[in-house]
Amino acid sequence: MKSVVWQSLTEEQRESALERPAITEGANITAAVSDVINKVRTQGDNALLELTEKFDGVRPESIRVSQEEIDAASERLSEKMKQALEQAYTNISLFHKAQIPQPVKVETQPGVVCEQVTRPINKVGLYIPGGSAPLPSTVLMLGVPAQIAGCQKVVLCSPPPIADEILYVAKLCNIDEVYNIGGGQAVAAMAYGTETVTKVDKIFGPGNAYVTEAKRQVSNDFRGAAIDMPAGPSEVMVIADDSAKADFIAADLLSQAEHGPDSQVVLVTPSAELGERVADAVQAQLKELSRAEIAEKALASSLIVIADSIEQCVAISNYYGPEHLIVQTRDPRALLPELDNAGSIFLGDWSPESAGDYASGTNHVLPTYGYTRTYSSLGLADFSKRMTVQELSADGLKGLAPTVVTMAEAEGLDAHKRAVTIRVEALEKGE
Amino acid sequence: MKSVVWQSLTEEQRESALERPAITEGANITAAVSDVINKVRTQGDNALLELTEKFDGVRPESIRVSQEEIDAASERLSEKMKQALEQAYTNISLFHKAQIPQPVKVETQPGVVCEQVTRPINKVGLYIPGGSAPLPSTVLMLGVPAQIAGCQKVVLCSPPPIADEILYVAKLCNIDEVYNIGGGQAVAAMAYGTETVTKVDKIFGPGNAYVTEAKRQVSNDFRGAAIDMPAGPSEVMVIADDSAKADFIAADLLSQAEHGPDSQVVLVTPSAELGERVADAVQAQLKELSRAEIAEKALASSLIVIADSIEQCVAISNYYGPEHLIVQTRDPRALLPELDNAGSIFLGDWSPESAGDYASGTNHVLPTYGYTRTYSSLGLADFSKRMTVQELSADGLKGLAPTVVTMAEAEGLDAHKRAVTIRVEALEKGE
Ligand SMILES: [Zn+2]
Ligand SMILES: [Zn+2]
Repeated sequence: MKSVVWQSLTEEQRESALERPAITEGANITAAVSDVINKVRTQGDNALLELTEKFDGVRPESIRVSQEEIDAASERLSEKMKQALEQAYTNISLFHKAQIPQPVKVETQPGVVCEQVTRPINKVGLYIPGGSAPLPSTVLMLGVPAQIAGCQKVVLCSPPPIADEILYVAKLCNIDEVYNIGGGQAVAAMAYGTETVTKVDKIFGPGNAYVTEAKRQVSNDFRGAAIDMPAGPSEVMVIADDSAKADFIAADLLSQAEHGPDSQVVLVTPSAELGERVADAVQAQLKELSRAEIAEKALASSLIVIADSIEQCVAISNYYGPEHLIVQTRDPRALLPELDNAGSIFLGDWSPESAGDYASGTNHVLPTYGYTRTYSSLGLADFSKRMTVQELSADGLKGLAPTVVTMAEAEGLDAHKRAVTIRVEALEKGE
Repeated sequence: MKSVVWQSLTEEQRESALERPAITEGANITAAVSDVINKVRTQGDNALLELTEKFDGVRPESIRVSQEEIDAASERLSEKMKQALEQAYTNISLFHKAQIPQPVKVETQPGVVCEQVTRPINKVGLYIPGGSAPLPSTVLMLGVPAQIAGCQKVVLCSPPPIADEILYVAKLCNIDEVYNIGGGQAVAAMAYGTETVTKVDKIFGPGNAYVTEAKRQVSNDFRGAAIDMPAGPSEVMVIADDSAKADFIAADLLSQAEHGPDSQVVLVTPSAELGERVADAVQAQLKELSRAEIAEKALASSLIVIADSIEQCVAISNYYGPEHLIVQTRDPRALLPELDNAGSIFLGDWSPESAGDYASGTNHVLPTYGYTRTYSSLGLADFSKRMTVQELSADGLKGLAPTVVTMAEAEGLDAHKRAVTIRVEALEKGE
């Protein structure tokens, strides 16, 4: 792992040391995805079957997975696996239920009552990538908040064949419809609907470059669907002092590195000595991994930053804005009030990132690529929307009238003023 | 106003009756805005001065408005105007303070603590359009939540000359920097920064087609800035029964119509007779308006829908998803639990839209164009982001370990498993 001493860098060198790689999506991806979307919009289910055969190499017997198939999955899974998934489900449910907002209701001045009410987004679509290993954890992270928010219809798309673990979690989360469809065609189907696939209001979930581009395209069309958040490569930053255990940190850095060759992995520490020990531990642990090749590629662009102090470590983290932030210092909680611009924070020696990836209860869908400055960790709020309500009594309107009239006059809006004066006049006439 | 009887329409006719006009931004706007952004990014302040001279016809003495100028504005305003702005400020502050979220902290299983913490977005930029009349109300709607959220730096751009009302509200809201810049160049300056203008993380506020396109472009660039929500023409829907006062409804419909020729204005009622009386009242009131010409254009595409029942009115509203929804029925509050997909709701005879536009306390920046299905009324949450935190004790990790290990195995992620087992082994060895 490459190591730099922060104090010795110029401002420019600092920026470039922590700069994220640009994501340059080829024009060919944009055009290919646009073609797929058009095909699905015009040819519906037929296009889905054809594109699935082309891209996934199988023509599913039916687009929708039947209830029998979902039930059968449960019977094939081991008790141990089901218990693990249920424990994760329970923890994630508890944390997301705690996010149910308090109702807001205020009488701002006599007779003027303002409220904020929350409603579930009616129809949501969850995308779960396929690939060599199934991702039941992502079904939990999307399915649980959708269930708790009370979305009326929750559908899930994943490329066939869909693993038993995914079907089992879909059942736990009471997902209404599961479809054997992946890639940009799945995003298009959920955004616009087909004969079989329900059109949804908002699409959630990770995916490859085609899925990401499809989400971008449908979210730029007001007849399409909203999306959860912008995508980017996954990242971890670790802040550690000389009390930290090098082999724990190495294991955490490698957890991030094994996600993909584009993963960003950074250790920030005031202890050069710890930095060296971590670099050694990473090399030692790397050999044992089945995904060593992937991790090695990610490590090639990873970084150890030697800072002056823990305060400087915090400043560097707030500047970088990591998706995952692990803090292994003598008193990690003392740093929390100063930490900003992070997706999810892991405090102390016993809080590895993998705990949050799977089962602590927090959501593993997080802003990355610097979007932590403005976007939130996925939560209940993303499956809901807030509406405001106001109710004025006759006296309330009389009391507010001079303010509204004066401001409407300043803004040159006669009818706005008239909507108030016509009512006040009616009141004065005793109507 | 055109009138249709809902029951007599086919499904297709219903869709087309409530279909919003497509916004077709010419390729020339896209290219022109892209040029402006490039110019600001490469030439900074010089580009801002040059573009302001070109588009606004004035070359401001300085880009930033000085504190002296802001103070002088206050002295030129009438006491009546200042009082009105202060009353609105107070009400909007009260309602947005009530939105400060409760902290979330849960022990999901023994020794596993999960939290959600909220942080202000550090730097925000507010855009206030220019034009024939100043818009101090929009400064309040953006400046108050930014202040309450605790954003570290709040900047404001508006085309010169900036009205005294705007400068006065900027002072009330403690806005840090005010710039004499409008249009796409203002959006570019806030998204990327110049010698004078502070680069911000997120940009808020309404604007013309150029401003909207500039917001879209900078939000699609990860080096740019996030934005508040997608834009569209303003809308009102009124649900009324035969107890409603036709002249109040007409005044509300005209309030919306005077905003712009593209405003959408719809009345839904089970009473054909009320529909006729409202249409007449609209014609009568229209003549008195200074912006009658604008309102008349909007009314050309407005609609009265005669429904079978109040329940059908509610269903139509939930389907349309209006930005503003006014309910003038015998018992408006009884309908609230059924109302969905609305930006802001106005209950009863004494709650005109103009109350919420200015001073009731709710925010007038609302999702429109059908985005009410997934987007929220602007609020404190939009000036903040949510981070999650987890802290496991040694025992907490031991208890969670079997779940994480089983799931990591299913997903084929060795290092994720190792990050847990290496810690559990250390605990067992008594390290
Ligand atoms: Zn991970
Ligand atoms: Zn208005």
